[in-house]
Amino acid sequence: MSAELEHRLLAELDKIVLIDPHSHINPCSAASETLADLLGYHYYTELAHSAGLAKGQIEEPGLDPKTKVGRLVECLDRLDNTVQVSWLVALCQRFFGLTDDRITPANWESLYDRAQAKMAEPDWETQCLRQSGLERVFLTNDFDDSLQGFDTHRYIPCLRTDDLVFHLAKTETRQRLTKATGIEISGVASLRQAIDGLFRHFTSRQARACAISLPPWFAPAAVSTADADAVLSKLLTGKDLSADESVQLSQFVFWTLTESCAEYRLPFDLMIGVNRRVYPTGVFQGQDLFDQRVSLIQYQALFNAFPTVTFPISVLAQISNHELVSYSWIFPNVVTNGHWWYSNIPAYIEPDCRARLQAVPRTKQIGYYSDMYKLEFGWPKFQMYRQILARILTQDFVIDRRWSESEALALGRQVLRGNVESIFGV
Amino acid sequence: MSAELEHRLLAELDKIVLIDPHSHINPCSAASETLADLLGYHYYTELAHSAGLAKGQIEEPGLDPKTKVGRLVECLDRLDNTVQVSWLVALCQRFFGLTDDRITPANWESLYDRAQAKMAEPDWETQCLRQSGLERVFLTNDFDDSLQGFDTHRYIPCLRTDDLVFHLAKTETRQRLTKATGIEISGVASLRQAIDGLFRHFTSRQARACAISLPPWFAPAAVSTADADAVLSKLLTGKDLSADESVQLSQFVFWTLTESCAEYRLPFDLMIGVNRRVYPTGVFQGQDLFDQRVSLIQYQALFNAFPTVTFPISVLAQISNHELVSYSWIFPNVVTNGHWWYSNIPAYIEPDCRARLQAVPRTKQIGYYSDMYKLEFGWPKFQMYRQILARILTQDFVIDRRWSESEALALGRQVLRGNVESIFGV
Amino acid sequence: MSAELEHRLLAELDKIVLIDPHSHINPCSAASETLADLLGYHYYTELAHSAGLAKGQIEEPGLDPKTKVGRLVECLDRLDNTVQVSWLVALCQRFFGLTDDRITPANWESLYDRAQAKMAEPDWETQCLRQSGLERVFLTNDFDDSLQGFDTHRYIPCLRTDDLVFHLAKTETRQRLTKATGIEISGVASLRQAIDGLFRHFTSRQARACAISLPPWFAPAAVSTADADAVLSKLLTGKDLSADESVQLSQFVFWTLTESCAEYRLPFDLMIGVNRRVYPTGVFQGQDLFDQRVSLIQYQALFNAFPTVTFPISVLAQISNHELVSYSWIFPNVVTNGHWWYSNIPAYIEPDCRARLQAVPRTKQIGYYSDMYKLEFGWPKFQMYRQILARILTQDFVIDRRWSESEALALGRQVLRGNVESIFGV
Repeated sequence: MSAELEHRLLAELDKIVLIDPHSHINPCSAASETLADLLGYHYYTELAHSAGLAKGQIEEPGLDPKTKVGRLVECLDRLDNTVQVSWLVALCQRFFGLTDDRITPANWESLYDRAQAKMAEPDWETQCLRQSGLERVFLTNDFDDSLQGFDTHRYIPCLRTDDLVFHLAKTETRQRLTKATGIEISGVASLRQAIDGLFRHFTSRQARACAISLPPWFAPAAVSTADADAVLSKLLTGKDLSADESVQLSQFVFWTLTESCAEYRLPFDLMIGVNRRVYPTGVFQGQDLFDQRVSLIQYQALFNAFPTVTFPISVLAQISNHELVSYSWIFPNVVTNGHWWYSNIPAYIEPDCRARLQAVPRTKQIGYYSDMYKLEFGWPKFQMYRQILARILTQDFVIDRRWSESEALALGRQVLRGNVESIFGV
Repeated sequence: MSAELEHRLLAELDKIVLIDPHSHINPCSAASETLADLLGYHYYTELAHSAGLAKGQIEEPGLDPKTKVGRLVECLDRLDNTVQVSWLVALCQRFFGLTDDRITPANWESLYDRAQAKMAEPDWETQCLRQSGLERVFLTNDFDDSLQGFDTHRYIPCLRTDDLVFHLAKTETRQRLTKATGIEISGVASLRQAIDGLFRHFTSRQARACAISLPPWFAPAAVSTADADAVLSKLLTGKDLSADESVQLSQFVFWTLTESCAEYRLPFDLMIGVNRRVYPTGVFQGQDLFDQRVSLIQYQALFNAFPTVTFPISVLAQISNHELVSYSWIFPNVVTNGHWWYSNIPAYIEPDCRARLQAVPRTKQIGYYSDMYKLEFGWPKFQMYRQILARILTQDFVIDRRWSESEALALGRQVLRGNVESIFGV
Repeated sequence: MSAELEHRLLAELDKIVLIDPHSHINPCSAASETLADLLGYHYYTELAHSAGLAKGQIEEPGLDPKTKVGRLVECLDRLDNTVQVSWLVALCQRFFGLTDDRITPANWESLYDRAQAKMAEPDWETQCLRQSGLERVFLTNDFDDSLQGFDTHRYIPCLRTDDLVFHLAKTETRQRLTKATGIEISGVASLRQAIDGLFRHFTSRQARACAISLPPWFAPAAVSTADADAVLSKLLTGKDLSADESVQLSQFVFWTLTESCAEYRLPFDLMIGVNRRVYPTGVFQGQDLFDQRVSLIQYQALFNAFPTVTFPISVLAQISNHELVSYSWIFPNVVTNGHWWYSNIPAYIEPDCRARLQAVPRTKQIGYYSDMYKLEFGWPKFQMYRQILARILTQDFVIDRRWSESEALALGRQVLRGNVESIFGV
């Protein structure tokens, strides 16, 4: 009975057309062209590499897509237990007529050809969105993105600010900033002006969020204009910054961005906890890990200083979920946001989602985002989440707390779609 | 079959009359007078505030109880997913005739009136205890509480020592100590005498525990009399203490209290991990959070130095439960104590309770306490715990380990009631 | 239906003959002689002590085995909830004809006698292995073990290196090293030579792994020969090392051992996170605990520097499992290894195993090891794991992901046995 109920709730959740609040879609090339675009997703290249495939086999210069897919498929039997491979199989079954439950050396070539034919249909992108129950998709845009050449109603810009906060000391970053805004960075005043220019540009193109990923050691703090000016002056005269000065500069830029979020009424997505390049000889995008010794207490000053800015927060380490639940339960401006990267597997989504649904106001939970690079992954990733959500709604709400099915569905709808609309104002 | 068995076990657990080993009940006003006493519980005010209700709406000076309830009820539809709201609904159904499964703008006024009438019955306090299956309730008493005017058999005093350990540098605290004991604090000797006086007073009034909540950074240590005297002298001559001296003073007082626990044979409840005033503009009692980077290794010296003192330990961060289980498994004087505050939701109680029942001697587990401020919350909170306990006893013990139902029930009875008696000597 | 399926899978898993990849078996006295060898396992002595039995009662000099068992049995009713006691009961039922579900003051003496008679059978060791489904068992050998007098096909040597890394500053350790290798330690060169000698000796006797347990604070790092020589010289002239120098010496030895692992193609088992002697007056082997504030980021340099060395990693704190899953997912040379000590209870094995099966390549997971001191514990400990594995294969793979039973069993077989063969080359 519980299985039937779960099935019924899942069927209803499936009907909800979604807005995906975070992805890495390139709006000018949103869908895939060959299976290589799918198997090239870092989940498969890094897992294949982890299971023994040499990086050179994957990233060989000039490698044609079909050969690359063939090499990766040879490894899939070492990875087929992973939920990531289950996404791939599920989407190939749904979109490309795969009837087997595995992708193997024996069946991949015909799959490759069928997928290529499908992807070549002129409206594949639109078909894929429709078949995936996706209406609108948030992007991750470099701060100097022109935001031209795509439909900002379908693909919602989001100002990604990692480079500004952590790489402003690089000449290249400052040159990109100047090019994007027309403003020469000569001190704090012009830096503020330039940042303001970015927000004006992004919001004029319907951006609905600012976003950043943050290392475990980072703790936002207000930096005085005088201190920031001193660091910036030193930098602009070509000197190297000390470690402390570097951090101060990052803190200053981060704080200034948050001020702009307040002014332009943009939520600031914080993705907390990633260490970059922990395995520097790993494959592309398969080099980052984390140190779980991080706490949201590091963000105390920020949350207190900006009561009007909403912070949708993702945490990388699963153990951070309890703090996230608790901080969202107390701070009006903190909301839970999806299940990120290394925490995005059912074993962690289920307990994390359960705790959020039990202790965070229902209006303050963004259930899930895809984080995808290619549209085809939206459906299987959201489907994984919907299955878990249906299970929790069934067990915790309908059975244990005797909610009606329609009450449970309303809660599901709210975390899947409603809160994306209300929190990001879309 | 498993559901029936669980139901049967729960029905048996329901019959056990309990001693609640930790609450914040005011023994002179133990039960509520209006629904405002219930909705004024910080869980509701902080969640409503988190979901958007301005603090000024909740804490407006002179606000009458009924208006306050009305304002909070307006927010409940944003919070009705939370287990905290489920406690409120459950108790209103049980005690005040609520028949709906929600408290809404449409039904709250009649509920308010019914509750007020019920609460006005002269024996409501006794009725409530009986209907809740509660026999005796531990209190949380300020160190300068006279402990007069109530039945110490029903309401068991507990010496709460946060102020002494963390706020002795405040003149007000020392004045309260002097007033309570008649001893002027002029150095370590008189401080020890005063603390001894408190223990004499509390135990003469049937206190059965000493208790304290502790921040994540605190690490107990023995401080020499000479060092303590130096710090205390500096303080008493009106000088400000350095951060290190402050910590030393806290450590000295804490260690001295533990010595008194040994002498007076009182268990020392340690509630580990809370950061106070993280969100200082939050509502009353809705400002505290935590930094989960804490370890019980910080208490190593304490546990070794006081083998005759029992330390019932509560941890705030869910991730601390594994250390708590392990330290209780090894140290004879460490016992597990309830599920505290941010860890007191089913998503965390269930795995935490499961791990304790699997790895800590059954004599060393205090299953649950209510932490309530008003008697009406005892029943729904214990009921939440009993449901989880029944599920674990069913699944892990009767099904997986083939225990008889009566063996499983005996274990349940022991963690719910038996250990409270044996550990606190009540 | 799910329960039947789980039962069917478990029955198949039961048939797999295992290689136990980590134990503390003494190959010259592998099985027990009396029940005292079983009840003397630190799990029972430390839990009994934790529940109130004085250390002197357990470790009284000259205590005869039967009296010792009697004293421990008197305490078992305080511990019978623990999974550790369930191992004891299960093995006594399987091997020694116990028909009750408890070991009590009323039944233990006849059990003692029956067990003693069984253990006295000349082929008990072989019987026990066969009845346990165990074919080969890895040992934990001191670095100066002669490795003589036993069948290295059945009992596979493993070079345990804690003493070398953390106690080389003790004269006794250096004397043992000299005695084992014939090399006087006069500096870095001779130390390297001696270590090389150990690896030659161990691999000549079919050793298949090097192993070490590590405290939470340890972070491997390369130390220059010059720096190492300076520290070693200071040590050899009889001076005390500073804390920093001690750490440098540990790091140097650890790094040198890893170089030998590379040269001799031995996996290096890292057991991360134990603090020794936290409770120094506890019973034998019942004194160690942990500080969960540890991160695998501390091993970043090591994993990058030794791509050809496989590191099977065990973590002590349950919260470390997420990092272990993630690091194994990214680093080709990191593999997950069993469920260690305080994490070796069903409440933690189940979520940990689930996460690994969902996100780590199936070729990179060593499901379980017994960690046993006496052969009789192999069966109940592996059985506990098999039950959890059967449940996860049933729920997550056959039901949720619609794998066939034979596909699920193949995955189970791989983590239980296949990967032990492929990773350790046995």
